[in-house]
Amino acid sequence: MSSEDSSRNPAPEEENPEKKLSKKELAKLERQRKRQEAAAASAAAAVSAVTMEADPLAENYGEIPLNDLQSKEISGKKWTEVKNLAAGLKDQEVLIRGRAQAIRAVGKKMAFVVVRERGFTVQCVLNVAPDVVSPQMVKFATSLSRESIIDAEGIVSVPAQPITGATQQVEIQVRKLYCVNKAIPTLPINIEDAARSEVEIEKALEAGEQLVRVNQDTRLNYRVLDMRTPANQCIFKIQCQVENIFRQFLLSEGFVGIHTPKLIAGSSEGGSAVFRLDYKGTPACLAQSPQLHKQMSICGDFGRVFEIGPVFRAEDSFTHRHLCEFTGLDVEMEIKEHYSEVMDVVDRLFVAMFDSLNETCSKELEVISRQYPFQKLKYLRKTLRLTFEEGVQMLKEAGIEIDPLGDLNTESERKLGQLVLEKYDTEFFILHRYPSGVRPFYTMPCYNNPNYSNSFDVFIRGEEIISGAQRVHVPELLTERAQACGIDVKTISTYIDSFRYGAPPHGGFGVGLERVVMLFCALNNIRKTSLFPRDPQRIAP
Amino acid sequence: MSSEDSSRNPAPEEENPEKKLSKKELAKLERQRKRQEAAAASAAAAVSAVTMEADPLAENYGEIPLNDLQSKEISGKKWTEVKNLAAGLKDQEVLIRGRAQAIRAVGKKMAFVVVRERGFTVQCVLNVAPDVVSPQMVKFATSLSRESIIDAEGIVSVPAQPITGATQQVEIQVRKLYCVNKAIPTLPINIEDAARSEVEIEKALEAGEQLVRVNQDTRLNYRVLDMRTPANQCIFKIQCQVENIFRQFLLSEGFVGIHTPKLIAGSSEGGSAVFRLDYKGTPACLAQSPQLHKQMSICGDFGRVFEIGPVFRAEDSFTHRHLCEFTGLDVEMEIKEHYSEVMDVVDRLFVAMFDSLNETCSKELEVISRQYPFQKLKYLRKTLRLTFEEGVQMLKEAGIEIDPLGDLNTESERKLGQLVLEKYDTEFFILHRYPSGVRPFYTMPCYNNPNYSNSFDVFIRGEEIISGAQRVHVPELLTERAQACGIDVKTISTYIDSFRYGAPPHGGFGVGLERVVMLFCALNNIRKTSLFPRDPQRIAP
Repeated sequence: MSSEDSSRNPAPEEENPEKKLSKKELAKLERQRKRQEAAAASAAAAVSAVTMEADPLAENYGEIPLNDLQSKEISGKKWTEVKNLAAGLKDQEVLIRGRAQAIRAVGKKMAFVVVRERGFTVQCVLNVAPDVVSPQMVKFATSLSRESIIDAEGIVSVPAQPITGATQQVEIQVRKLYCVNKAIPTLPINIEDAARSEVEIEKALEAGEQLVRVNQDTRLNYRVLDMRTPANQCIFKIQCQVENIFRQFLLSEGFVGIHTPKLIAGSSEGGSAVFRLDYKGTPACLAQSPQLHKQMSICGDFGRVFEIGPVFRAEDSFTHRHLCEFTGLDVEMEIKEHYSEVMDVVDRLFVAMFDSLNETCSKELEVISRQYPFQKLKYLRKTLRLTFEEGVQMLKEAGIEIDPLGDLNTESERKLGQLVLEKYDTEFFILHRYPSGVRPFYTMPCYNNPNYSNSFDVFIRGEEIISGAQRVHVPELLTERAQACGIDVKTISTYIDSFRYGAPPHGGFGVGLERVVMLFCALNNIRKTSLFPRDPQRIAP
Repeated sequence: MSSEDSSRNPAPEEENPEKKLSKKELAKLERQRKRQEAAAASAAAAVSAVTMEADPLAENYGEIPLNDLQSKEISGKKWTEVKNLAAGLKDQEVLIRGRAQAIRAVGKKMAFVVVRERGFTVQCVLNVAPDVVSPQMVKFATSLSRESIIDAEGIVSVPAQPITGATQQVEIQVRKLYCVNKAIPTLPINIEDAARSEVEIEKALEAGEQLVRVNQDTRLNYRVLDMRTPANQCIFKIQCQVENIFRQFLLSEGFVGIHTPKLIAGSSEGGSAVFRLDYKGTPACLAQSPQLHKQMSICGDFGRVFEIGPVFRAEDSFTHRHLCEFTGLDVEMEIKEHYSEVMDVVDRLFVAMFDSLNETCSKELEVISRQYPFQKLKYLRKTLRLTFEEGVQMLKEAGIEIDPLGDLNTESERKLGQLVLEKYDTEFFILHRYPSGVRPFYTMPCYNNPNYSNSFDVFIRGEEIISGAQRVHVPELLTERAQACGIDVKTISTYIDSFRYGAPPHGGFGVGLERVVMLFCALNNIRKTSLFPRDPQRIAP
């Protein structure tokens, strides 16, 4: 709410209209009450009846009976979206629906209600005036519980001074105010607490004030409230946009979107833990990746495919970046000669994605950074590619010894990210030609050294985000590699057989949607970019 | 292959070049052999060695050793897509990669190979000529197994007469031919058998010829082969396009795409069978719909959301239109007054979708109709809406008695579809105001009669395809309705609680992607529109 609001003069005081009601008025009131009683009776018994006091303006405010919300009529009324409220609407009558985010009384004759709709806010003013706003109406407004859904009707006005307490630079001089749906009086978390940045909390602490800090678990327990913060509204719009760009880019390059089954008979990849279940008497599990089926689609002549869908991992990873269920963005494509063709797609796709996010979502990114400050991602027009050996060498020169045929751990990944940023001024790069021993059995070994493979990982801000590779397309080698990795070939026979009918050389990659958003925005926890996260300790809400 | 091919004159016969090799030629051959032997040795042992006969042109054909396919080099060679082969390329040298769909020898001096890439085909011609094509090369071509992946290089020519045996109206006069990956000699199903229409089989039968009919189960067992038929290539392109239009339309109307968890602690809807599993020691199940979470997203202020993702149903439905796993297209939105606002979205979305499919996918629809003949869907510019009572009345007048508070069965749905088609000339319509007793507990009852509900189904060609409704947004009524439906309220407490913090009136709908494609194309089985279908008897491949 703007600081100038409290300095306003309340409207001149009037007699309480409750005191003198004419017979006509009383009759009208009676009719009103009967109407409303009838409506309330037909509504669910549990819904509280409409607040009624003797007031000739009583029709202009109150709780809407449930019965009226059960698709009773199509009135033709038009609601204006809060985000569209601007000075151009000055003096016009508008109707809005939103939440009572903040309510403040100024004496008994005036009240302010900040109404929020999908992250946008506007200040509504109730000022007692004859035949327009009664003191009872002001009382009704100030009795609203925060986060209740309300309809407000009134005239748009443009204050002389800028409004700091709402996103929209106009006010509504309210004539009618109805409660559509009540929130409980005491919310488990307040939106303004949930929307507060760490910086703000620290600053207040320095000034001796202890502000509420809502921890991650509480947020997730009351996700329905937590989702309403400006940052969260924007995080999930960004997530949707990442998916849009992913789709649009790939479609423009001749890829076909597919859907592969999540219920599978075997384990979808050897090794890691899967969720098991009984499928009509057959042991089954949830797909840990669409790997095998997307490859089968390549053998089925789709040429280039992508899939967006859930991926299930039963691993007990208690980290800031692992979930038991996440949204996989998967790609598989024929290659003519070299796995660099796959890296080329990664390069073009992600540079296009980062460009587009910076351009089309600048407002959303700004809102997120207000709660979670971050620096814009540094990336090159042409993505840097280093071999694994080059990466190991860079680390070695920095005094960190890595097994040249092993994998990088989280710490060495982060360190390499730092070294690359210093040397090449990018936080997005590809590391390829990984040791074969740390890649899945279906990864194609290098032509000149079977200890290395035609595979790659991609890093953003020092964290692995994408894994990709050329795949083995020859059934005999696939069998051999599976056996070498200790996989029972019988369990993957359908998969191997699908390469017996002519299989083109191919490769692909997979990336987690939540990780892209998390690392692009430099958020510190993947639970911030999953709407309803699932981890080893959480399966609700 | 075109009928005029066989009438061509083979090239004049030549002496077998095997018989007279100069020292120089032998030395060259030796060098070649050594090169190829070295390559073969470094390839996986399982891959068969390159076919070699003494031939000075031996470098122009043969099997590519696996080692050369392990990302050995980036040659800079350009492959032309088969679909882009046209008369404009006459006399130019092109390189293509595709499958040897059909191979035919004409004596020992000539061969035809029809090469298919992603549904498009071109005829390649090998004609023995000095220094260009050797008889051994022709022999190599005719020894290729069908469906093997090959690289063919040659000159584009334009035959005088139209080509009927391939989609492209040019030929390639082959100079080089390599096998990239061999298919096994005997395929479990032949693509031409799988691509045959019922009409063709019937016609042949009348003429006394018994053609192979590939049944649905065999197709699905060898889906990787079945997918390659022209109809299947197009069915899944249509499916992708349906999803594209769904997304684009909803994004243009202010919807946000979300992802909700498939692993949930309770059963996602009361009643029907769910897949159960153990989640880290907690009993869990797979979401039967994103219903509860998409509603929670509305309570979380996203205003309008959609989700595209898998839906799991453990029901034992052995029908042509049920699957245990399918792709749900789900929508949920705030409504201001009436559930007709949701029906308005359905109306605009599907009319836009049908228009777009007819416009942008006319070629694909034509290809599908060649194997599975169908009539274009009849739909109105403004979708017809009938109340359930009106539907019951129409059936009654046609002599079919329906319980006015019961549901329609498959037969009565089909009959109603016929009656509506006759009366209103549309195969796409909405039936709304369903009896409450046949809808889920969270469906909002009608304001004037709790026996009916603010709900609707949508039909295409006499089959239900979409279910939608206004939802109960008041926790007290929701509790009451759940109890009335015999649901243990404790198991859905998180869901009910999410309406306690202010909930806007809202509604939505869900539709199965596979059903949209099946019914738009009038296909007779939903297994035809699922890439890897899951039904009570199938969890593979």
